Amino acid sequence: MTAMAREMAEQPEVIGALLGRREEFAARLRAIAPKPLTGVILIARGSSDNAAIYGRYVLEAALRRPVSLAAPSLWTRYGLAEDLRGYLAVGVSQSGKTPEITDTLERVKAAGAAAVAVTNDGGSPLAGIADEAIDLDVGPEDAVPATKTVTAQLAAFAILAHALGEPLWPDEAWAAVPRAQAEVLAGDVSAAGQVIARSGNHVQLGRGFLFAVALEGALKVAETTGLASQGFSVADFLHGPIAIAHERTSVVAYTAPGPVAKDVRDAAQRARKAGATLIGVGEDGDISLSMPAGVPEPLAPLVHVVRAQQLALQATLALGLDPDKPRGLTKVTPTT
Amino acid sequence: MTAMAREMAEQPEVIGALLGRREEFAARLRAIAPKPLTGVILIARGSSDNAAIYGRYVLEAALRRPVSLAAPSLWTRYGLAEDLRGYLAVGVSQSGKTPEITDTLERVKAAGAAAVAVTNDGGSPLAGIADEAIDLDVGPEDAVPATKTVTAQLAAFAILAHALGEPLWPDEAWAAVPRAQAEVLAGDVSAAGQVIARSGNHVQLGRGFLFAVALEGALKVAETTGLASQGFSVADFLHGPIAIAHERTSVVAYTAPGPVAKDVRDAAQRARKAGATLIGVGEDGDISLSMPAGVPEPLAPLVHVVRAQQLALQATLALGLDPDKPRGLTKVTPTT
Repeated sequence: MTAMAREMAEQPEVIGALLGRREEFAARLRAIAPKPLTGVILIARGSSDNAAIYGRYVLEAALRRPVSLAAPSLWTRYGLAEDLRGYLAVGVSQSGKTPEITDTLERVKAAGAAAVAVTNDGGSPLAGIADEAIDLDVGPEDAVPATKTVTAQLAAFAILAHALGEPLWPDEAWAAVPRAQAEVLAGDVSAAGQVIARSGNHVQLGRGFLFAVALEGALKVAETTGLASQGFSVADFLHGPIAIAHERTSVVAYTAPGPVAKDVRDAAQRARKAGATLIGVGEDGDISLSMPAGVPEPLAPLVHVVRAQQLALQATLALGLDPDKPRGLTKVTPTT
Repeated sequence: MTAMAREMAEQPEVIGALLGRREEFAARLRAIAPKPLTGVILIARGSSDNAAIYGRYVLEAALRRPVSLAAPSLWTRYGLAEDLRGYLAVGVSQSGKTPEITDTLERVKAAGAAAVAVTNDGGSPLAGIADEAIDLDVGPEDAVPATKTVTAQLAAFAILAHALGEPLWPDEAWAAVPRAQAEVLAGDVSAAGQVIARSGNHVQLGRGFLFAVALEGALKVAETTGLASQGFSVADFLHGPIAIAHERTSVVAYTAPGPVAKDVRDAAQRARKAGATLIGVGEDGDISLSMPAGVPEPLAPLVHVVRAQQLALQATLALGLDPDKPRGLTKVTPTT
């Protein structure tokens, strides 16, 4: 078994444990969050940036305050000075060592924001800078493609939303997440993996809470297979990028029951009409992959992302590649 | 001559005229902007969204307040209610008729934000909703790929930064823009267009102010050629997507003299080492395209974007395609 598959398989247990600590985190986060809260700023790169896109939706929906993704170069390269009193800043890095993220969180904190670290290493520089840390504690990740750490980052944003905002799901939904993850992991998506492996380019589609999963799923396919692979919000996709969907294109579309499902379905069908092969996740397609019931849409990314990981893994295996060591990638990227 | 080429050629004149009206716009914008200003929210899709990415950088640098891109579905699909008093919201749509953008601007305004429209039709629904409009007035655009309207949107954000923030460039820089655009238009990039046309996938790279040009240039190539084409901030590119750069990949990298030029150069050289063919814009590459001097980096996107349009046009012509009518695209995209 590859390290990637093994780490994916650990998710119901480690994510269940992380979600089980939510009240402990919530108490600590409430203690340091500005009151009133003006807004939230998220700082991340790569897969962590995709988790932050989920954070952007779930936090704005729950907190009803503007949430933005920082442009780190404004802080680290252009020397921005800004008054951020009243803001909460969240730096996200699984290693807690990405210099650009630690540097930006430090500068944003110096500008007055309360600082939270989301990291898999509670002793990391990022955690040291922050006023409070959500230590994901999901154990070491050996495969270069991040899986359980990304899902844990999604869980951290769900916990932040629970700690600081209005409830978006009933209390019993927390326990449904690891159960649904286990159900997804028991499924076989090798046929879908072969479709992706045989395609000339690859697109993943989502909207709203699941937009982040489309971005992360597409990045995972790009990293592990080297295939040109892009994730889109369907609203953006229809504004031009649909031109890249044709007979050699594989498309994955993610839906969960909710107000954007029809938007995603309609865009996916347009791509299919243009000749693309559609893999529907929670949705009908040339290949249809059902998703477990009982997880409300705002929490669904924690489950759908596991399906996204499976698709990337199976595409990689279908190509005869080693998912644990993609060409040209390393675990910590030292951008500043 | 194609409509796309003709509309590109109009840019020095129409952008020069738009920039020449900056003080008139500035007075009207200052009159409606909240004082003090809490933050800025930008609402856009497609090419307009790429212009908004430039807006995100130039406005945050000049205004020193957080700038975020709205997630329209939170407003139009999930019924978000939020208190946005103290915020300035900017809706961007060349037609002023994209329902999603007009609907979101209307809801954000109802939440208390001062509303500005950036549109090429001063009589459009978007302008009607807003408290104030920047009417780009660059004339009709017949080609489906937006060129002069996108550059005009970039100019509108430069004018907004000038109106509401601290100066980021000297006054003489305004006049340098149309001169530099004319100089770019006089250049021949057909060899670079052939490199893109022959490639299997395409990547564009930038950082900071020029990140938006990489996104817009990559979208233009995707729209006009159907090639799998992606724009990245170099910091994000190194966190995984570099895996898609190989022997069949063409890469365009944009730099201007400034604090991020080395970051872009280093990432572009890494892609080249992985086998990609590099087209350097303001930068050395397998093909090197020089850029005019005299335009400060924060205004450079208004000039570099013209180079990006030329590259997409020449790639399309090299493929024997009609740039004015890309497959599967229409001018107004009715997403909601």
